[in-house]
Amino acid sequence: MKFARFIAAGEIRTGVVSGEVIREIEGDMFTAWDYTGNVFHCNDVSFVAPLVPRHVIGIGANYVAAREQLPAQLPDIPVFFFKPSSSVIGPEADIVIPNGIDEVKFESELAVVIGKEAKQVSEENVWAYIFGYTVANDVTAPQFFHPDGHWTVGKSFDTFTPLGPVIETELEPRSVSVKARVNGEEKQNSPTELMIISISKMISYLSSVMTLQPGDVILTGSPVGAELVGPGTVIECEVDGIGTLRNTFVAAKAPAVSS
Amino acid sequence: MKFARFIAAGEIRTGVVSGEVIREIEGDMFTAWDYTGNVFHCNDVSFVAPLVPRHVIGIGANYVAAREQLPAQLPDIPVFFFKPSSSVIGPEADIVIPNGIDEVKFESELAVVIGKEAKQVSEENVWAYIFGYTVANDVTAPQFFHPDGHWTVGKSFDTFTPLGPVIETELEPRSVSVKARVNGEEKQNSPTELMIISISKMISYLSSVMTLQPGDVILTGSPVGAELVGPGTVIECEVDGIGTLRNTFVAAKAPAVSS
Repeated sequence: MKFARFIAAGEIRTGVVSGEVIREIEGDMFTAWDYTGNVFHCNDVSFVAPLVPRHVIGIGANYVAAREQLPAQLPDIPVFFFKPSSSVIGPEADIVIPNGIDEVKFESELAVVIGKEAKQVSEENVWAYIFGYTVANDVTAPQFFHPDGHWTVGKSFDTFTPLGPVIETELEPRSVSVKARVNGEEKQNSPTELMIISISKMISYLSSVMTLQPGDVILTGSPVGAELVGPGTVIECEVDGIGTLRNTFVAAKAPAVSS
Repeated sequence: MKFARFIAAGEIRTGVVSGEVIREIEGDMFTAWDYTGNVFHCNDVSFVAPLVPRHVIGIGANYVAAREQLPAQLPDIPVFFFKPSSSVIGPEADIVIPNGIDEVKFESELAVVIGKEAKQVSEENVWAYIFGYTVANDVTAPQFFHPDGHWTVGKSFDTFTPLGPVIETELEPRSVSVKARVNGEEKQNSPTELMIISISKMISYLSSVMTLQPGDVILTGSPVGAELVGPGTVIECEVDGIGTLRNTFVAAKAPAVSS
């Protein structure tokens, strides 16, 4: 089932996409909802991010280029980072390159949406806590990484976390590929089996640190091939079975500091 | 005015504290609220964290020991980090030391609560966007810092962000002291003028990266004197004019991994 949020008749609505139509729903996507009876055609609406995440949690450097490079020993402490929910945008929205820099990095990723409270969950059991999957672009300005290794600023700018177009609840995440195209040219294309820390390991580990809640989104890392790009670039992030998340990079407006 | 959240008659309520009484309010603390007419005595209720933060943003290593150590040149990129809202607890709640380690660090801090949407705000103008101030304990397990410098895991465990007891809206944050006592013995006591990056600089900078929203909480750094402590330790964090935030450190229960 594919859940989406969209604007129609001036309102943000939630619905279930099937083919070219969206059946509007009301209630809580994660627990109890009903069809409203309203039906829209995909071409008549604007999609927005399929949820407003509670937390966005990313994992650093989580893909190898080929299976034989997968390490025998996993790191004790994965590189996790948070992105603020203020950085989330939806399909077709502009990604704003911050003032003072000319380029930022795209990173196409498979994103996991948590559906149930999860605390100290074993690797075998994580699947019961996952609501579904969406596509993410973990936009990054490495120019704003702190020299001591803190990524926070470089990951947190407004518009730096495109999500969408839908949350697919029926995906098998271990057998899909994560792709990116820059102005139509393929730059990333890796099966998720090239992840260093698997989805089940990463969610189990996270749940041993913090209680995950419905609406938490985990970005599972980006394949090799991410690049710095400038204004005017069209980026399409794609995961088999979910869809394509397209955005355009634009330069920031003049750095006016307003009150 | 001192805002608090508290449990009375089995419900979490919000109120305005004056002396020993709390006048319950309804509505949105940040925008429009009214007194319900219910009045409680502070001794009859349990305080919880004075808000559920939208984001918790911390700043690293932001105090010097003495005024003459204040650097002439500020860093280009401050060390910011996020803590998840799942780590927030209130006064008197236990701080749980994670499995596998014996001690964690307390860090008493002045916390700023944002009250209005803030984007690209100049240093002079930040004060208009601040709703009030509370006391925070930025509990930290440096044993879980990643060797490459990422603090996320070591800052994110459940119970690692005690906040409270109240949000004081009328504080002058540039002329208060931030203190901590361990089992009654003073360990931290510094005026906020020993901050390296001032409150106005840090909020202005953050607002140039991300749009701050009502309910975002910024932990402004901890004075010299923070220490590692073990189970049974009682920690009291205090800021003049706000109050004392007291919690007790306890060991985690057995590391059972449940489904």
